[in-house]
Amino acid sequence: MKLPDGFSYSGVSCRIKQSGKKDLGLLVADNPCVAAGVYTKNMIRAACIDINRTITPTESCRAVVVNSGNANACTGQIGFENAKQTASLVASAIDCSDEQVLVLSTGIIGEQLPMQKIESGIVAATKQLGRTESDFLSLADAILTTDKYRKTKCSHIASDNQKVSLAGIAKGAGMIGPNMATMLSVLATDAKLSPEHAQRMLQVAVDLSFNRISVDGHTSTNDAVVLMASGRIDLSAADEVRFQSVLNETCLELAKMIPTDGEGASHLIGIFVDGANSDSDADQIARTIASSNLVKTAIHGCDPNWGRIVSAAGYSGIELNPETMSLIINGFSVFMNGVPIPFDEKQVSQSISSATEVSIHLNMGSGSGSSRHWTSDLTQDYVVLNSEYHT
Amino acid sequence: MKLPDGFSYSGVSCRIKQSGKKDLGLLVADNPCVAAGVYTKNMIRAACIDINRTITPTESCRAVVVNSGNANACTGQIGFENAKQTASLVASAIDCSDEQVLVLSTGIIGEQLPMQKIESGIVAATKQLGRTESDFLSLADAILTTDKYRKTKCSHIASDNQKVSLAGIAKGAGMIGPNMATMLSVLATDAKLSPEHAQRMLQVAVDLSFNRISVDGHTSTNDAVVLMASGRIDLSAADEVRFQSVLNETCLELAKMIPTDGEGASHLIGIFVDGANSDSDADQIARTIASSNLVKTAIHGCDPNWGRIVSAAGYSGIELNPETMSLIINGFSVFMNGVPIPFDEKQVSQSISSATEVSIHLNMGSGSGSSRHWTSDLTQDYVVLNSEYHT
Repeated sequence: MKLPDGFSYSGVSCRIKQSGKKDLGLLVADNPCVAAGVYTKNMIRAACIDINRTITPTESCRAVVVNSGNANACTGQIGFENAKQTASLVASAIDCSDEQVLVLSTGIIGEQLPMQKIESGIVAATKQLGRTESDFLSLADAILTTDKYRKTKCSHIASDNQKVSLAGIAKGAGMIGPNMATMLSVLATDAKLSPEHAQRMLQVAVDLSFNRISVDGHTSTNDAVVLMASGRIDLSAADEVRFQSVLNETCLELAKMIPTDGEGASHLIGIFVDGANSDSDADQIARTIASSNLVKTAIHGCDPNWGRIVSAAGYSGIELNPETMSLIINGFSVFMNGVPIPFDEKQVSQSISSATEVSIHLNMGSGSGSSRHWTSDLTQDYVVLNSEYHT
Repeated sequence: MKLPDGFSYSGVSCRIKQSGKKDLGLLVADNPCVAAGVYTKNMIRAACIDINRTITPTESCRAVVVNSGNANACTGQIGFENAKQTASLVASAIDCSDEQVLVLSTGIIGEQLPMQKIESGIVAATKQLGRTESDFLSLADAILTTDKYRKTKCSHIASDNQKVSLAGIAKGAGMIGPNMATMLSVLATDAKLSPEHAQRMLQVAVDLSFNRISVDGHTSTNDAVVLMASGRIDLSAADEVRFQSVLNETCLELAKMIPTDGEGASHLIGIFVDGANSDSDADQIARTIASSNLVKTAIHGCDPNWGRIVSAAGYSGIELNPETMSLIINGFSVFMNGVPIPFDEKQVSQSISSATEVSIHLNMGSGSGSSRHWTSDLTQDYVVLNSEYHT
């Protein structure tokens, strides 16, 4: 794994989490670098998100500090001051100004950050900054909450000049909640990008990836995707096209890891809608299917229950003609031009139970609009995880 | 229980359901009567819904026939012919024309109706038509699917003339799916109403009741509410106001029985949003909270998890100001003007665990718009019920 030039990483435990797992991470750029960010659309936003929004896109970012275990959301003016104080502590430690530090938080809502722990964590994380794969993985671990596994992806672009690296980490398993989650991702590259360009490219990639996944449909107060570009390697026009393509792929791979690791999930469900009147129609249909508990429990039960899928499309709010609709589950045609067709239910059920990924292809038969979306199935374990927690 | 004059009822088993439980019911008007109907907004509609939509509102309805165990949805042209044939069999049995019969179906999607069973069921149900409470309850039983209990409500309006009766039945526990549910309700009254008036009054009542409930948010292909008015008793203008009020109450009581009996549910959750900029804003916020799996699992866990409730409002798509929002759970203030306030978590948790009904009052602090919505909590049993079924 060749990490992008110009960055160092660390992740430590400062006991925000009672478990003693890593809960504070730093990504530090050697020199002021370009940073772009895409943030939650929730009207109830964590303090750190409001601060980051005033900073990105920028060409003078020095660091991203992430804490897990406490979301610092719904914490009022004190929470806002604590987020600013966190940036300030990092700025002092690495010798830059407060506005050169982005802050990300994930974890419990409604509790104030334990600032003494944060302060000692920042001191420790600064001391441990390094450039090895192990340092990078420490950062990836420090941002996790209910995730069962670490989420990283490193890619390379064979540019006209040198080999450009893009390294990304992500976290997320449930969308939100006290002790629960949020979706965060941090990407770093040594490519040279202007702030506006980085922002535009990141927005494109996020729209095709992190904005196409769900576990429970509950948008977090703290969602954020940040791209840092150290600018070591110039990109030609052709390189930029390649970079966008690799950025899209990297974001998509990281994004799909989230519902794969969805709370309690036993299957990743890919929903592919085409033949719709427009991409936005297809998108709304895909999202409606992805958020149907009845579809998600059917997949958990390995039940090729096409009625639930087709009827979810029916209440998506999009005009549709049942008589042109066809549905394929895991490669098996089950519904064609508005009527059920005979299929071997056992065989389709076995194809679901033997895999951890399920594909649902719905063709609307009326146009050329398409969209894709990924979600997790809904299991008893999801309910146990989210109902056994007490505030 | 004084049933409305002018109707007879029956419910029989014709073995559509393997369990042998009642699965075919008849409500027959002595003379042509007024009928109004409100139907599913799902674009994928059962054949019977399309037929009923061409009939109501009408002043010459004679019967409603309901079968449970088979939804006759997604069944193409054959399904449409079978729905018409069902009406025709009832019309022959009670001597009227096909267009005087409304047909309602609920149960498995995508299977053709067993027409021989339907035919023998209609013969048996016609023979058993009667006017006693027991006949009425047989009809109420014949429309159930995954419901744990029968849903009926009889009300009376002290009119300026005579005592007007309004008798209603309903069914529903999950919204839809093969072997699963749908929401149906049939109401009968001896009041005299014009078709247009009956339709308008029913629409008002349904908007305030059946359109305010959810279990899993999955709109059925077969949802229907039908009001039959035999016209025996004239209503004065003042009576009409009373009638609308009793119709609203009756529909609301029947509607609330559905999430109370929600698949696997342990709590009915009432969500009351006020202080919004408009009623429609309040409605969208209430619906978003009601469809959050994280809110529904928290209530199941007796967890006064206000963060999940407030953040759900935040992603409802409605502009809001966190700093004016306040939240009361079961009478306990937990969040006021945008910040958490100290409360006894154990006490609130106990108030949830000791009751089967939970109230969530969210005040947006910005206007006079309000709305209410009822849903069920999300439990392991819901997942088991909906994932263990195999098509």
